[in-house]
Amino acid sequence: MTSSIPTAAVLLIGDEILSGRTKDANLGYIADYLTVIGIDLKEARVVSDEEDDIVAALNALRTRYTYVFTTGGIGPTHDDITANCVAAAFGVAIDHHPEALKILRAHWQARGIEENEARLRMARIPDTAELILNSVSKAPGFHIGNVFVMAGVPRIMQAMLDEVAPKLTGGAVMLSRTVPLDLGEGDVAKRLKEIQLEHPGVMIGSYPYERDGRFATNIVVRSRDEVAMNAAAEEVEALPAELAAPSN
Amino acid sequence: MTSSIPTAAVLLIGDEILSGRTKDANLGYIADYLTVIGIDLKEARVVSDEEDDIVAALNALRTRYTYVFTTGGIGPTHDDITANCVAAAFGVAIDHHPEALKILRAHWQARGIEENEARLRMARIPDTAELILNSVSKAPGFHIGNVFVMAGVPRIMQAMLDEVAPKLTGGAVMLSRTVPLDLGEGDVAKRLKEIQLEHPGVMIGSYPYERDGRFATNIVVRSRDEVAMNAAAEEVEALPAELAAPSN
Repeated sequence: MTSSIPTAAVLLIGDEILSGRTKDANLGYIADYLTVIGIDLKEARVVSDEEDDIVAALNALRTRYTYVFTTGGIGPTHDDITANCVAAAFGVAIDHHPEALKILRAHWQARGIEENEARLRMARIPDTAELILNSVSKAPGFHIGNVFVMAGVPRIMQAMLDEVAPKLTGGAVMLSRTVPLDLGEGDVAKRLKEIQLEHPGVMIGSYPYERDGRFATNIVVRSRDEVAMNAAAEEVEALPAELAAPSN
Repeated sequence: MTSSIPTAAVLLIGDEILSGRTKDANLGYIADYLTVIGIDLKEARVVSDEEDDIVAALNALRTRYTYVFTTGGIGPTHDDITANCVAAAFGVAIDHHPEALKILRAHWQARGIEENEARLRMARIPDTAELILNSVSKAPGFHIGNVFVMAGVPRIMQAMLDEVAPKLTGGAVMLSRTVPLDLGEGDVAKRLKEIQLEHPGVMIGSYPYERDGRFATNIVVRSRDEVAMNAAAEEVEALPAELAAPSN
């Protein structure tokens, strides 16, 4: 089967997923996201923190699909070797990236965080790569060729994916609207699921939090279609009144 | 690195995972399970319901690892093609298996379930394969060579894994000890690397998380040797006091 729809693969990097210590939440999120912006996710792989395995998987996937999205292995510790592996796969050098250094140093100085060799690892970026900005914790990802290298922490990965989406061919910009609900996740789960089923072009995410001892939930409605997004968001906004009304 | 510890790969089969419609729960479960019984999960892949892709992944993985565990694609519908793909990968014929037929017919008759062509697909098993019994819903999985073919529904997959485990030549059980540190990953990365280098028989993983706006890190120390694990874990436990002490 051939088609003009861009294809993609996801490469999850990390021993912690294969040992079971961390339960991956990124594949499902990326799968939903790509479906909504019109990119066909064809394959995913999980590999451990071993250079040969990462390089082999990168080369197998980047030659086969339009895009490759990686998560994990870009932190400050010795087992974070993704950037080196991407440089090796593309046959380019790797060094501290001036803009990445600038971003990180400004962040560290503002917060009184010590600059050390481990943290400086997070500024190492393969030559010719472009940064993917990280609005959550600053340490950037990067993209080179058709490979997009993102963090493994879900909240950071999600912010990076929003950063990346407008650069993808065929991938429309993902719009989002957040609906804050003063209700616990358990109160809204059933209706949310129904609303999700009624709105297939939309991703509905539920992000519970606790404030002053009370549970509340932010509902994030994402779609590349503004009309579809608003239709679903309005149903979510109507939830509190709906739940408060006497059932008939 | 070579070792006598058996290795494994997991192959998750199904468009529904790649489209985001189903959030996979099997990889994390199998990862935990193999860790506990002392088998080293080295890689996982997710492929769609396309024969070429499934056969290529099966052949890549079964030649590389001691065991391959697949989930999904063994139900009654037209897109359940895993059994055919396994037969193709091993170059054997596939037909209705007498014992599988017997099990399924007894189940259908007892429940008044109609026998039809779609349901009979679930009795198709590659030649020379042995059944993996399914205590939940009867339709069996199978194993052939070093490949174990299981259902995608988590409760059924889990029952099949229990069925399979006694057939596996396991290494020693992997032990683990978690040391929670109230420190960011960047604060401990340098010493962790040193501790890892001093303890070659031990795997040290670093798992940062955020709680109430603060970054903290769980350090997981794994080894098949309890004495080695404890020696490394004690060095990690000493880290906060070490970092707080005035440097000399």
